[in-house]
Amino acid sequence: KKSETNKALLQIQSVWDFCKEDTGNVIFALKAGLAVLLVSLLILFEAPYQVFGPNIVWAILTAVLVFEDNVGATLNRGFNRALATLVAVILAIAVAQRALSSGHVAEPFIIGLSIFMIAVITSYMKTWSRLVQYEYGFRVALLTYCLIIVSDYRLGNPIRTMIDRLYSIAIGGIISVLVNVSIFPKWAGDKLHEELVKNFHSVADSLEDCVKKCLEDASEKSKITTASIDELPDEPTYKRCQNILNSGSKLETLAKSAKWEPPHGRFMHFSYPWSQYVKVAAVLRHCAYEVMTLQSIIHAKIQIPYKLWVVFQSEIQEASNQAAELVRILGTDISCMKWSPKNSLIKRLHRSTKRLQRSMYLQYYDLLTSIVESPILDNPSKSFADFSPSYPVPDQRELAEQLERYHEIRRKQLKRLYSWPSREVDAFEEDGEKSIKIVDSLDSTAILSLANFTSSLVEFVARVDHLIEAVHKLSTMAKFKPDDGL
Amino acid sequence: KKSETNKALLQIQSVWDFCKEDTGNVIFALKAGLAVLLVSLLILFEAPYQVFGPNIVWAILTAVLVFEDNVGATLNRGFNRALATLVAVILAIAVAQRALSSGHVAEPFIIGLSIFMIAVITSYMKTWSRLVQYEYGFRVALLTYCLIIVSDYRLGNPIRTMIDRLYSIAIGGIISVLVNVSIFPKWAGDKLHEELVKNFHSVADSLEDCVKKCLEDASEKSKITTASIDELPDEPTYKRCQNILNSGSKLETLAKSAKWEPPHGRFMHFSYPWSQYVKVAAVLRHCAYEVMTLQSIIHAKIQIPYKLWVVFQSEIQEASNQAAELVRILGTDISCMKWSPKNSLIKRLHRSTKRLQRSMYLQYYDLLTSIVESPILDNPSKSFADFSPSYPVPDQRELAEQLERYHEIRRKQLKRLYSWPSREVDAFEEDGEKSIKIVDSLDSTAILSLANFTSSLVEFVARVDHLIEAVHKLSTMAKFKPDDGL
Repeated sequence: KKSETNKALLQIQSVWDFCKEDTGNVIFALKAGLAVLLVSLLILFEAPYQVFGPNIVWAILTAVLVFEDNVGATLNRGFNRALATLVAVILAIAVAQRALSSGHVAEPFIIGLSIFMIAVITSYMKTWSRLVQYEYGFRVALLTYCLIIVSDYRLGNPIRTMIDRLYSIAIGGIISVLVNVSIFPKWAGDKLHEELVKNFHSVADSLEDCVKKCLEDASEKSKITTASIDELPDEPTYKRCQNILNSGSKLETLAKSAKWEPPHGRFMHFSYPWSQYVKVAAVLRHCAYEVMTLQSIIHAKIQIPYKLWVVFQSEIQEASNQAAELVRILGTDISCMKWSPKNSLIKRLHRSTKRLQRSMYLQYYDLLTSIVESPILDNPSKSFADFSPSYPVPDQRELAEQLERYHEIRRKQLKRLYSWPSREVDAFEEDGEKSIKIVDSLDSTAILSLANFTSSLVEFVARVDHLIEAVHKLSTMAKFKPDDGL
Repeated sequence: KKSETNKALLQIQSVWDFCKEDTGNVIFALKAGLAVLLVSLLILFEAPYQVFGPNIVWAILTAVLVFEDNVGATLNRGFNRALATLVAVILAIAVAQRALSSGHVAEPFIIGLSIFMIAVITSYMKTWSRLVQYEYGFRVALLTYCLIIVSDYRLGNPIRTMIDRLYSIAIGGIISVLVNVSIFPKWAGDKLHEELVKNFHSVADSLEDCVKKCLEDASEKSKITTASIDELPDEPTYKRCQNILNSGSKLETLAKSAKWEPPHGRFMHFSYPWSQYVKVAAVLRHCAYEVMTLQSIIHAKIQIPYKLWVVFQSEIQEASNQAAELVRILGTDISCMKWSPKNSLIKRLHRSTKRLQRSMYLQYYDLLTSIVESPILDNPSKSFADFSPSYPVPDQRELAEQLERYHEIRRKQLKRLYSWPSREVDAFEEDGEKSIKIVDSLDSTAILSLANFTSSLVEFVARVDHLIEAVHKLSTMAKFKPDDGL
């Protein structure tokens, strides 16, 4: 008997632990419960029931339908509901009076036709792309109209009924909004702000992780097996980027709700530029995409020998660290709602990017020629010999082989990158599974891969410039405090 | 007077024209109108009203709330509503009996507590990510429970009331579904199928347009001004790609609805793999992204002199045409629901890609050395001279300048690519607006740009391989007819 109560206690404990982790949602649920309970109490205590009659049920209906996770969405729904009900009520009264005065024969025809017309018009209007966000309002309008015209006006005294109903809906809506705003209010704007800042830090971390990992490996000379490619989709860095790439529509919904919220907390001025947040997030996503490209190249690193990495280590490290720092500072600026001038940082970043490019370019040439110095001078290819007669030309066949190998591996790696089960692969590659030996010599395909890496990094920097611009625009629109760094 | 009637006629004419273009939505609106009208008629003709009493209004409520654009979504909503109502009714009856038998003092407490509990539990459950799609169901359950327990069971004979209500809801739901399925049914599955095929053709067209434009320009030697960069976001090719990139969530919603549809039309076997459609679309989006990269490079073509394009014209044309053809064939295969073997096409594509890579690689070397041959031999840089003593090394300063210019232009172009108003730009670039002359000599940055173009094209091909795999998987899962080409 005692062990059973213990078990029950343990179970309650585990549910409790689960809920504690998830405070936000639990609070939301409790608030929803409270709102519905308050409205129901109105009805359980008979007084309002005697005033408004059975129409008071509409208060419950409204409370349940209007209550949303955050304040903006609740206000939006409440507004939709109120306006739609009002329009529907006015229309219904007008049509009902008309129908009543037109005699018993015409009455059902007028009512039927009006229902059909209203249904067609509201259904058609809500398919327009600009009105899709008011879909709920159109539905409520149609619903209210039908209910009033079909059933309520038979009860006699239709205007009294409708006014009662409007009051009920107002009561339900107001209780919903009050509970939502007064108890641990959850603002869509706050959430949007947080999410955006989190994404900035996420991109910066991913970039640093990504570069650190490849240079760490290089310095430890540890072996990266092909298996690591298969694990790519499970990697935290990859997942983080994927999350950012998928966050677009979520942020857009938040921005739409945030527009409905009154000035509050730190966002005290009217017409706060929430839509600019969405735009900044879009630019940030382009940065995240570039980090994913970098990752996919690193995970083909079997192709890039460590000695090559070491040659560019300092330049890559410098450029990537500075880029990550800049992204992180942008995130902090947004988080603190200030704008610090970044000219010196930007210049420093551009300088180190240019250094990286320059060194890559120069080394590329050197590395290339050092490959060409191999003993194939006695076999000059014909087609290009007349084009640059004074330099030895690499053996076409050998180059072709190296390129094929590079292409082959890159192809395999891409296949895995998008995490497809590779069962059907063999159907297409009859000649693909040749034993691919890991080349640890300084070959041209490795340089190609490294050049790919470098240019992706440079692209990232170019997009950071763009990001700075977007954040700067946000800071002026949202009137961030200028911070001159003392 | 006559002109006024003419005007009115013209207006009606224009509305009519607008609606004719938009047949799909008009049909949807008419269907919705018909469904609501049919349900309302049930009530206007007094017979059902006498059987079910005022509960018949619930039929209207259900019809309005359940009617959705396509069959799958309607069925999904109908199912949600039916199940939620049933659960709520059973719960409510159980609790109401309990409360009634517990005496007048305890009754309101039991009822209040039960409302609060149900509201908290349903609100909490609908925040779980796996249950978010049943959000509507939870809302209906809570709503129904509250209405029944607060108001209906006072009317006496609660079980009779609830059974009447269930019948009403069933009538409303069934009429909605019948109208939706029997008159010009719009299947989510059909729509998903069409959209996917359209995306395939869109990607193929974009790629071809993009390459054709650049080679056409090259052969005509027409000048592309910097202005064309600003126009980029308005370009049809760019817009098409952007549309594909943004279509993700739309296709996902369609797939979710499609899963609810019974076998129909061409999709006759059960558990048709609609989710695989979404996966194929995701892979296709990666291809579209690569086309956008190609586009952004072309629009920096001021940097790539025509004579350089001409060198690789045939290789680029061949590879891109074959890739586009393959994508188009994949689209047609899906459209016709067949699977034709593509081994020979794939091999041909790989061969021409390799040819492109090889020629790029060889020419790169030649072009590079031909630049180096410029008269700067008398100024050898120190740092790299000992590394490859037998070859002349390009002047570092000059290279650096060229790279800076390339980087600068690429940066500007990226800024414009994402269509930001460039007002704030100048804040960061104090030294950016130097007059950038269009370089028409064979310089190294142009080659860099061209190499970028080529490797993006190769990347596209690698992703096409991946795409083939995904489509092949789809074809086996969906049991497409094998087509051996006669």
